[in-house]
Amino acid sequence: MQHYIAVVGGGACTAEEALAAEQVGALLARANVVLVCGGLSGVMEAACRGARREGGLTVGILPGGDRAAANPHLSVAIATGLGELRNGLVVRASDALIAVGGEFGTLSEIAFALKLGKRVVGLATWELPRFNDAILRAASAEEAVRLAVGAAA
Amino acid sequence: MQHYIAVVGGGACTAEEALAAEQVGALLARANVVLVCGGLSGVMEAACRGARREGGLTVGILPGGDRAAANPHLSVAIATGLGELRNGLVVRASDALIAVGGEFGTLSEIAFALKLGKRVVGLATWELPRFNDAILRAASAEEAVRLAVGAAA
Amino acid sequence: MQHYIAVVGGGACTAEEALAAEQVGALLARANVVLVCGGLSGVMEAACRGARREGGLTVGILPGGDRAAANPHLSVAIATGLGELRNGLVVRASDALIAVGGEFGTLSEIAFALKLGKRVVGLATWELPRFNDAILRAASAEEAVRLAVGAAA
Amino acid sequence: MQHYIAVVGGGACTAEEALAAEQVGALLARANVVLVCGGLSGVMEAACRGARREGGLTVGILPGGDRAAANPHLSVAIATGLGELRNGLVVRASDALIAVGGEFGTLSEIAFALKLGKRVVGLATWELPRFNDAILRAASAEEAVRLAVGAAA
Repeated sequence: MQHYIAVVGGGACTAEEALAAEQVGALLARANVVLVCGGLSGVMEAACRGARREGGLTVGILPGGDRAAANPHLSVAIATGLGELRNGLVVRASDALIAVGGEFGTLSEIAFALKLGKRVVGLATWELPRFNDAILRAASAEEAVRLAVGAAA
Repeated sequence: MQHYIAVVGGGACTAEEALAAEQVGALLARANVVLVCGGLSGVMEAACRGARREGGLTVGILPGGDRAAANPHLSVAIATGLGELRNGLVVRASDALIAVGGEFGTLSEIAFALKLGKRVVGLATWELPRFNDAILRAASAEEAVRLAVGAAA
Repeated sequence: MQHYIAVVGGGACTAEEALAAEQVGALLARANVVLVCGGLSGVMEAACRGARREGGLTVGILPGGDRAAANPHLSVAIATGLGELRNGLVVRASDALIAVGGEFGTLSEIAFALKLGKRVVGLATWELPRFNDAILRAASAEEAVRLAVGAAA
Repeated sequence: MQHYIAVVGGGACTAEEALAAEQVGALLARANVVLVCGGLSGVMEAACRGARREGGLTVGILPGGDRAAANPHLSVAIATGLGELRNGLVVRASDALIAVGGEFGTLSEIAFALKLGKRVVGLATWELPRFNDAILRAASAEEAVRLAVGAAA
């Protein structure tokens, strides 16, 4: 069965984060993984761009009720109208998460995934004091994808 | 922009309903429509089988938290863990609905779509007394797809 | 354990429906039932007004993210931001439903309740051809409350 | 208009956390605040016990579809069947949050509240490196309630 891995991170992001996300997306596609994300811009868009370049399947679970807000690199855009509550669905739909940078929305996805017992791989993302081992730290897109695919298996 | 049309109906269905759903799915795929459904068996599975045979994209929004329950003809399976509340997401994600037969779950999707002002096309499905015109009646899979694509446009 | 019974119906309603809903609310309160509703006007507000007059507890599960839209007769207003998807939560939170009149939103609640195997009592509400027995028909507020409390027990 | 404040924390907690939560609950009730929580044991139950002792109104938004799992100190128990996704509803329904201790579920609620721009007051709860000011730190139950009521106003 194909794996589903979420790439989460800010809707606005740095050029460095976008580059990392794009590499992550490309590598997930090469690994035949379905990429799940929140469907918007920033890290989400960069990851989808990378995945689609490699022929991958990308799914965006959107906060609004209108697909017009979706980034242009989605194979499938799911309009939910749930607002930020859709973050929980991004996690539910995925076997593991890769977090690239990110602020509070990303933190909600990390926390929700850990609560559900799903593996979270971090690339320059949140630190969780007292729970330092909760997030698997990756030093590169390659390592992030390797760890996430291993966790999803 | 690509249209998204939901095919809704019973998780168990008659051979006649399955045949109609399969034709609907095939015709939606030929019209380059993304087929959205609840991801399970019966009408959902038949519609997806038809769509995939024609190279279409099929999305299943599952009630449970595990993709293992998905029918085998889904391009993308979204595990939600929302139970029957996912019916509302099937409608939200779609521009129009085609209902094939169906019982109470299908009725909830028809009603929700009408509440949201989305067009519902019916193939031998629920009658709504006092609101006879609410559902566009189709006599064949061809007519159902033509009406639904027209409504989604 | 206290019973929870939903009163569902139009956000706009006739004077006759409002009167019936208010009586239903009052009788539910006297039966020590927690009244659940969608929190807005029309049938919801009338039912809550009746319940509160008798010292009952009323809960409104609102579609929006702001309690300001709530009717003034709620003991508790739950802002959800889920839009019409909150209809499913009104049903989930309740042991049985009483439907007073109503249009498509009400129909979605009736259908969802029947799908979940919860009893629906109808006062001049939707007819469901082929499933005439699915809704328990009441001829008065008294009968509606008696049937719903019996079903919830 | 009455304020709604969530008290979030572990379903299992230390005696010290339970004591703090109980004091928080009691003080919220005296301030005429509706206490919102996840409806289960630990911090949630302790806060509700404190609030009810002072005649307050307590609302539990439960993960499951059955009210039987609710703690015994709830004025109103809302069964959602949404699983951990109900964490988002706890936040949506509230004007501000008080977090007492807690693990990943609590972190998801903190993050979601901050994403929505709602104030979070912390009592010996998560540290958020790089965002140290995001959570208002309280040294006592009294201070926590004072800060949260001020933020909700």
